[in-house]
Amino acid sequence: MEFMYGQDPGAPVRSGVPEHGRIPKYYAAKVEIAALLAELGEGEVLPTERELAARFEVSRETLRQALRELVLEGRLRRAGRGTVVAGPKLEQPLALASYTEGVRGQGRRPGRHLVGLDRFPCPPALAADLGLEAGDPVWHMERVLLADDERVGLESTYVALARVPDLAADFEPDSSFYAYLHDRLGIAFGDADERLETVLATPREALLIGTPGALPMLLIHRLSRDTGGRPLERVRSLYRGDRFSFTTHLGTPAERN
Amino acid sequence: MEFMYGQDPGAPVRSGVPEHGRIPKYYAAKVEIAALLAELGEGEVLPTERELAARFEVSRETLRQALRELVLEGRLRRAGRGTVVAGPKLEQPLALASYTEGVRGQGRRPGRHLVGLDRFPCPPALAADLGLEAGDPVWHMERVLLADDERVGLESTYVALARVPDLAADFEPDSSFYAYLHDRLGIAFGDADERLETVLATPREALLIGTPGALPMLLIHRLSRDTGGRPLERVRSLYRGDRFSFTTHLGTPAERN
Repeated sequence: MEFMYGQDPGAPVRSGVPEHGRIPKYYAAKVEIAALLAELGEGEVLPTERELAARFEVSRETLRQALRELVLEGRLRRAGRGTVVAGPKLEQPLALASYTEGVRGQGRRPGRHLVGLDRFPCPPALAADLGLEAGDPVWHMERVLLADDERVGLESTYVALARVPDLAADFEPDSSFYAYLHDRLGIAFGDADERLETVLATPREALLIGTPGALPMLLIHRLSRDTGGRPLERVRSLYRGDRFSFTTHLGTPAERN
Repeated sequence: MEFMYGQDPGAPVRSGVPEHGRIPKYYAAKVEIAALLAELGEGEVLPTERELAARFEVSRETLRQALRELVLEGRLRRAGRGTVVAGPKLEQPLALASYTEGVRGQGRRPGRHLVGLDRFPCPPALAADLGLEAGDPVWHMERVLLADDERVGLESTYVALARVPDLAADFEPDSSFYAYLHDRLGIAFGDADERLETVLATPREALLIGTPGALPMLLIHRLSRDTGGRPLERVRSLYRGDRFSFTTHLGTPAERN
């Protein structure tokens, strides 16, 4: 045992890590504003910067740093000329189900705006993922994801032209691609591998999604296969970090494999 | 069909979203530096700011913005007085397995530093999660997570004192808590619910983990149960967003539940 215990119950035990120093002013203000948000409740308008700075006895600059972090974390959002208390983050299940089903499951209305649909000769790395030869034609479909008309993400789907030859003519880009695959082509998903990380939006992505600069995003890379185990699509989905969280249920290893 | 297609194969189709404008200078520099990083390879030292600014014909201020984003994204890291090309992010499976097993699985050496172990009367929300009465004693164990001696995360575990009465006397805080539960107490994990989001580290967390300010973090909330379905622990795990990604395998709904 490297550490002492047994003094008063509840007494903290510290070992090997220096105690942290002073609390930065902006952070103290942030904690106070967070308490105020809880009092106000979702959708309520925050007092002006001037009022808040006076109330918490900090400079406007310090106050703005606190507000900026609360915006980045999705606890405040800018609305017109004011700043309002944001609602909780959406909780999207990590599941084979589509974006559509996930958003509907939370009582929101899913939507998508087509940014672009194009086809190109498959580069080698993507060909390996999709079980194609380099140069085989693939679709790239890019869509902005919406929840209740709010732009919340950006999705790029790569799929072999041979699997969905009539995508450009047949598919309504504001509908579920998974429903299209299933209902029109009889293709069902079998399994998928996903990798999730946090990234910063590029300027183009920030513009398309309408996010402030430097907003942390959640990026999910998916490679899915059909029920026969054949690679089906590679998807790059970018979600606003201030609006989304992802949930999963973990079983024992035997259950999962 | 809202969009036109059928011109040249490969021609992009745009609908409903304005074309993006000019590429910001810092972003153009970032793209060029990213290409340079790929040429240099992991662990190599980046040229000085002065050299890079001259090479890409941007101001030092613009260059610094590009470097800052590359650091936040984990593609560069500060090392002593220089900046070096970072390795790929760790890929930690979202699984019932412990942090220890996940890190070992990637050929890294896991470690933990105890920050604090204390016990306190369970507040109502936590009591509901853990199947306790409010006021029942619970442990809170906080540990910095290490991979190859690098600080990469911070983990808070809450568990009922009644389940692990001898934690303070018995448990070596640099070892796996899951191995302790299993080997000493015969408790095995049955299942868990997890929720994953991106947050900004608090000043205290940034200090403990040694991250730069405003670094996006991945936060995982876990509630796990034993094989009998009894709640076991609530865990709040914070991982450096520039060093970690999480992977999962998705089966069909029938397989998952």
